Amino acid sequence: MAVILKGADVAQAKKPAIMARVDALKAMGICPALGIVMVGNRDDSQAYARGALKALSACGIDCNVANFPRDIKQQQLLEEIRAMNADIKVHGILVMRPIPPAIEWEAVENMVSPQKDVDCIASQNLSKVFKGERDGFNPCTAQAVMEVLEHYGISVAGKRAVVIGRSLVVGKPVAMMLLQRNATVTICHSKTSELARVTSGADIIVAAAGTAGLVKSEHVKKGSIVLDVGINVVDGKLTGDVDFKQVEPYVSMITPVPGGIGSVTTSVLMENILTAAERLAGKT
Amino acid sequence: MAVILKGADVAQAKKPAIMARVDALKAMGICPALGIVMVGNRDDSQAYARGALKALSACGIDCNVANFPRDIKQQQLLEEIRAMNADIKVHGILVMRPIPPAIEWEAVENMVSPQKDVDCIASQNLSKVFKGERDGFNPCTAQAVMEVLEHYGISVAGKRAVVIGRSLVVGKPVAMMLLQRNATVTICHSKTSELARVTSGADIIVAAAGTAGLVKSEHVKKGSIVLDVGINVVDGKLTGDVDFKQVEPYVSMITPVPGGIGSVTTSVLMENILTAAERLAGKT
Repeated sequence: MAVILKGADVAQAKKPAIMARVDALKAMGICPALGIVMVGNRDDSQAYARGALKALSACGIDCNVANFPRDIKQQQLLEEIRAMNADIKVHGILVMRPIPPAIEWEAVENMVSPQKDVDCIASQNLSKVFKGERDGFNPCTAQAVMEVLEHYGISVAGKRAVVIGRSLVVGKPVAMMLLQRNATVTICHSKTSELARVTSGADIIVAAAGTAGLVKSEHVKKGSIVLDVGINVVDGKLTGDVDFKQVEPYVSMITPVPGGIGSVTTSVLMENILTAAERLAGKT
Repeated sequence: MAVILKGADVAQAKKPAIMARVDALKAMGICPALGIVMVGNRDDSQAYARGALKALSACGIDCNVANFPRDIKQQQLLEEIRAMNADIKVHGILVMRPIPPAIEWEAVENMVSPQKDVDCIASQNLSKVFKGERDGFNPCTAQAVMEVLEHYGISVAGKRAVVIGRSLVVGKPVAMMLLQRNATVTICHSKTSELARVTSGADIIVAAAGTAGLVKSEHVKKGSIVLDVGINVVDGKLTGDVDFKQVEPYVSMITPVPGGIGSVTTSVLMENILTAAERLAGKT
């Protein structure tokens, strides 16, 4: 029986420190706040924003959702972000993706102030992830993977880690963060041949391919550790990239979906907002 | 007998296109030029600059070396770089490393204009390497590895590539570039345990660890391809990270040291300078 790595436990353990940081900021007259930029009325973005708003306000962090019409001009959207950059009452900025194709994502990336870039889209922060520097902001989901490892005392140094997926929000940053902690890191993807041969050599697997049930028993080494970042909806049910039923009996530790990595992402977002607020206040 | 991948052949093949691009720029009244920033009188930097100057001028590219005293103040150095950024007669800027410890490297990185950053130190260009975008500048040595693969028609898609070394000038960028071309990429380093076990599974090995003779016969799979980026001096002799004599009989293709990757780096530098000059002229 594998140990189930519960995201809720990680989030719970983080809570006291988050609350203390919020209190310390409020004692300085600062109410930490996130600005969410949304373009068009996408259901998924709306659902995410509602969830974030609920979680953040429960911890005393404000969350202002700016919902712009689908046909907003790029220049106007950039001006709105510029205003958020300048607004001293906003400490973190999160731009919901996808945005309409008429707006260049790169222009948005370049507009968000690196100091408020709590989801790591600005090149200054991305290049820090690449360099292995820790004074920027890491992408929340990638950082959530590291937080789960840390919480459960899983050392990665000298271990073989395989990351499945090469997105900029999870795969590549997780690979760099594992590398920074001295893991030997392999990045697999849709063009990898003999995936099972590669992954079955891993001590740690991070599944972030976005393909439901991709990782089966033949993909894992006995006793390895599996972190499932996948969030896929199959028949109306949230399901990960790992075939949990098949894989669980073989591994030593595994995150479930739901209730795994996803449950830690909001805590990381809050920590990033607090870090931004503290830095902007000159506290750190 | 392995095929010897000769850097000089790659450089030679690149020459006609480089000359044509220089001519086209000159026809527009533009003399492509590199500005080299050197701090202190380091012998290694001097030797590099002399070599670059000779190679570049042979192709009609100017090379201005700005040699600053070891005790230059950071602010003054930054002002000098700012002046180069503004100088329309300089198209590429190369800052020789190492710089004295009194000067923060990060401040230098942030000062070099991304448009003239032909050795990829600015975060805008580094983040493009990380993202897999090709409209920035790649680090010259890392790009030289890709150029050798390209010249010899070596496809990496679906292959297993192992990069030994995780520096920002070679290891990490090469890993990202191989990944971008659909290789399955593993990054090894000094903390990797059982290195030979990892590397012996590779179809392609890029050795960039900076340890003379690190890669021996037990590290390579029969028939694999080995690219040696190491430049170490042992008993006054230039030697790579690969024990050439031991490894060559086992592999299908191998780069020598000297005469391998290093011979292509200057060509890549020239191409980057020309790209910068063309972009600044609005040609591309």
